[in-house]
Amino acid sequence: MSHSAVEVIRVKRDGGRLSTEQIHWVVDAYARGEVAEEQMSALAMAILLRGMDDSETARWTTAMVESGEALDLGGLDRPTVDKHSTGGVGDKITLVLTPLVAACGAAVPQLSGRGLGHTGGTLDKLESIPGWRARLSTSELRRNLDEVGAVICAPTEGIAPADRRMYALRDVTGTVESVPLIAASIMSKKIAEGTDSLVLDVKCGSGAFMTEPERARRLARTLIAIGTDNGVRTSALLTPMSTPLGATVGNALEVEEAVRVLRGRGPSDVTELTLALAREMLAACGLSDVDPARVLESGAAYRQWRALVAAQGGDPDAELPEAAHVHTLCATRGGTLGELDARAIGEAAWLLGAGRARKEDEVRHAAGIRCLVKPGDRVSEGDPLLELHTDEPSTIEDALRRLHGAHEITEGEVRRQPTVLERVGGADAEV
Amino acid sequence: MSHSAVEVIRVKRDGGRLSTEQIHWVVDAYARGEVAEEQMSALAMAILLRGMDDSETARWTTAMVESGEALDLGGLDRPTVDKHSTGGVGDKITLVLTPLVAACGAAVPQLSGRGLGHTGGTLDKLESIPGWRARLSTSELRRNLDEVGAVICAPTEGIAPADRRMYALRDVTGTVESVPLIAASIMSKKIAEGTDSLVLDVKCGSGAFMTEPERARRLARTLIAIGTDNGVRTSALLTPMSTPLGATVGNALEVEEAVRVLRGRGPSDVTELTLALAREMLAACGLSDVDPARVLESGAAYRQWRALVAAQGGDPDAELPEAAHVHTLCATRGGTLGELDARAIGEAAWLLGAGRARKEDEVRHAAGIRCLVKPGDRVSEGDPLLELHTDEPSTIEDALRRLHGAHEITEGEVRRQPTVLERVGGADAEV
Repeated sequence: MSHSAVEVIRVKRDGGRLSTEQIHWVVDAYARGEVAEEQMSALAMAILLRGMDDSETARWTTAMVESGEALDLGGLDRPTVDKHSTGGVGDKITLVLTPLVAACGAAVPQLSGRGLGHTGGTLDKLESIPGWRARLSTSELRRNLDEVGAVICAPTEGIAPADRRMYALRDVTGTVESVPLIAASIMSKKIAEGTDSLVLDVKCGSGAFMTEPERARRLARTLIAIGTDNGVRTSALLTPMSTPLGATVGNALEVEEAVRVLRGRGPSDVTELTLALAREMLAACGLSDVDPARVLESGAAYRQWRALVAAQGGDPDAELPEAAHVHTLCATRGGTLGELDARAIGEAAWLLGAGRARKEDEVRHAAGIRCLVKPGDRVSEGDPLLELHTDEPSTIEDALRRLHGAHEITEGEVRRQPTVLERVGGADAEV
Repeated sequence: MSHSAVEVIRVKRDGGRLSTEQIHWVVDAYARGEVAEEQMSALAMAILLRGMDDSETARWTTAMVESGEALDLGGLDRPTVDKHSTGGVGDKITLVLTPLVAACGAAVPQLSGRGLGHTGGTLDKLESIPGWRARLSTSELRRNLDEVGAVICAPTEGIAPADRRMYALRDVTGTVESVPLIAASIMSKKIAEGTDSLVLDVKCGSGAFMTEPERARRLARTLIAIGTDNGVRTSALLTPMSTPLGATVGNALEVEEAVRVLRGRGPSDVTELTLALAREMLAACGLSDVDPARVLESGAAYRQWRALVAAQGGDPDAELPEAAHVHTLCATRGGTLGELDARAIGEAAWLLGAGRARKEDEVRHAAGIRCLVKPGDRVSEGDPLLELHTDEPSTIEDALRRLHGAHEITEGEVRRQPTVLERVGGADAEV
């Protein structure tokens, strides 16, 4: 009945608080198709502009979970723990962290997403590997988790279907940037997947959704409150995202880099952040006595990676796609690289074909950018700085335009950014 | 391209001002189906909560006009003038005013709407008359205006089609109550119909959309600015709407009352407001030397009514439908009727079948309420106050419940409300 939808919209439009009953009704009716897309988009805009308090957000999340079925991960012989990143540029951490934490003895049910806009998606990256499948049935997911110890896959059909529809709707209606809706979207999937504990990597900086630490901290607290409320032990690390993570941005390029990290030869920033998150995850699931650095060194994480890829149909030894054209951008003067703007690099990689403008678009697996230097590195005039990889040479000009001003070469001192800005703990995870 | 729609939505969402180009693009793309319903509803909510200034509103109106075709009323041998009411309870003024002003020598192209919620619609009322047709082709409209001097009909297909779609969208998305969108919707139709001048009856009070005079005045000024900007001589009367107009609320009941007014035997408040609006319209179109009171007395307006009804297929002598059930509500004590709440009466009439909850619903022509007394009238215990007319006796209980507390009988003095609260003039109409 659109009558009731209009009433719910009006309450929020006029700055009121939605009741538990109203939230459950509107989400359920939306999932059933009784509340129309245009009604939900008006409500989403009202929520974005008027806000929802923590209790409304928690109810909204629960309603999203209840629009589908929750997975039951009980009966595994290991504790379950998952990680979520709010999205950054060059963020291939999941590819390393998931097999590493599984190699440490936890079960990791990593339900991931695809990239949209200038931030990449874990599933797009893994699809660079010939044969690898993102879609698993519920029974495959459960079996892989049992036998391999980890999965990285798309949410199964039954997981929070209302959230899936709403996410697509928000994307085309300018209603993405709402902290309560972002929090509910993230947490509904994690609660429905049935993990015992969860670590959040909340990114902060030019390349992240949240540019200000205060807003990132608020998002972290909201997420932790929802998790705790739903029996998921949740904590968060606030991490910087002003400079791309590691040395590559783009799907196959990032997979290749993740493998280097797993073999002990990756960029230090990726390795350090992976270990910090691994320690947080292991503490959350009661395995704090395991040292992830040792497990990484031992090669066990790399073997775990190969098993994970193979269990989803991928060939871990297959050649990854390479771009048809590589354009190198060189330093026009000598000095120290002072800045490498994550957003500009992410958007340039997107222009080269690494990302998609609309959900329906295909990504180009070989496209992306290799960062040959990092802030703090010394460069001489003429040194190569960035490699632009693409299958479409016509995109290079636009990408170069976007990269204009994205790096700075100075004479001054350059401070490297820390791996973690701060930890935000949940009540349980504080222990 | 949803890309651009999202950009436009974001500008308004973040409190910015839409450029002329953005407004024209988004309205045109919506009319063409390129901007989706859910995108327009998010934008409408952002406009409702963030507002539009007068210049944005004027551009939005122009874009709505340009989504269709403007009628060309040039070449008539009389000046054209129209009237618009923002909607009230028992407001049958158009039925009297249109033939009256035509009988005074103007041409009146009255494009009207249907009722929604507790306020009635002129077309629904006229459809009580057997045979009467609300839909005219552009050539019929033009011919009737030429030969009869007046039409009351639905906007033709070509008139502001984007507004028609948007009106239906706003109705189901809680985005009706935006002054700029209301103003653009009203004025786009009036500008597209090609009238030279326009008088607005802006209602104010419990039964109106605007309950506060300050908001009604603001709406009037916005409407006048848009009209003036588009070459339509526009002025407004602010009129009270706390008590129903006249003695009837409901479709056939109001037609019957309108005919009584046209024959000189109607309630004084309806006659007085009709004459006030007629004077304003005649002044606006250069016929201020004609006295509408005389024309009404002469019977010319009634003859004009008969011609108008007949020209659209109606039989002016036909019996109007009568309700199967009439329930009378009586005074439980003696005194002076102090108040008769317009909104409660309108909503009770709606419950009895006079209005529709959704656009697709049918109205019951015979349903409605007859007010046997008006504020200021003396009543004795047991005197009949209201007659509830319906074809569905099951609706009476709900209607009576809605009427609880809608009237008050006091011992004190009761001031009758004035016919007109104030006049708001346009630059030209000030002369």
